[in-house]
Amino acid sequence: MHRMLVLYPPPADPEAFRTYYEETHLPLADKIPGLRSRTYGFNLATPDGSESPYFAKFEAEFDDEASFLAGLGSPEGQAAGADLANFATGGAVLLHYEVA
Amino acid sequence: MHRMLVLYPPPADPEAFRTYYEETHLPLADKIPGLRSRTYGFNLATPDGSESPYFAKFEAEFDDEASFLAGLGSPEGQAAGADLANFATGGAVLLHYEVA
Repeated sequence: MHRMLVLYPPPADPEAFRTYYEETHLPLADKIPGLRSRTYGFNLATPDGSESPYFAKFEAEFDDEASFLAGLGSPEGQAAGADLANFATGGAVLLHYEVA
Repeated sequence: MHRMLVLYPPPADPEAFRTYYEETHLPLADKIPGLRSRTYGFNLATPDGSESPYFAKFEAEFDDEASFLAGLGSPEGQAAGADLANFATGGAVLLHYEVA
């Protein structure tokens, strides 16, 4: 199983980010071919209450690396990627890895 | 569902990290009370091949935030945390969040 991980540093307006993310961005991400399942969350916190480097996280499963790369390069994947500019004001860290 | 996420920046010796992680650290992590399931992976990569900020990732599920905090504060959680100094030469970013 291959996974895409997206980490979002704190955006300028967390509440606006959250609304846009759930109402607009997630529906775009869900159209990516080969995406088997996904989870996400907001308000990532450190156990000791110190500043967190990330506000939100997304993770999606694909059958294998080839499926992930094909999905990312598809028109739907490109559309989801282009949409980041519309809400990820703190940037986005996109990584992928094979589940051990 | 509440999740603990651990991100490991690149260590000095990735191969030694990997061996220690699977043979010694994971068995310690698996003893943490309240831990329902976990996944991990190595060699997190960027889609364009640029340098990745993290070499390894761990994620574990707990019933709720209280279970996570209790697990982290337990003797087993403290032992797993103390063990980081034995292999995480690049540091470790520990975060937690509620699955949306």
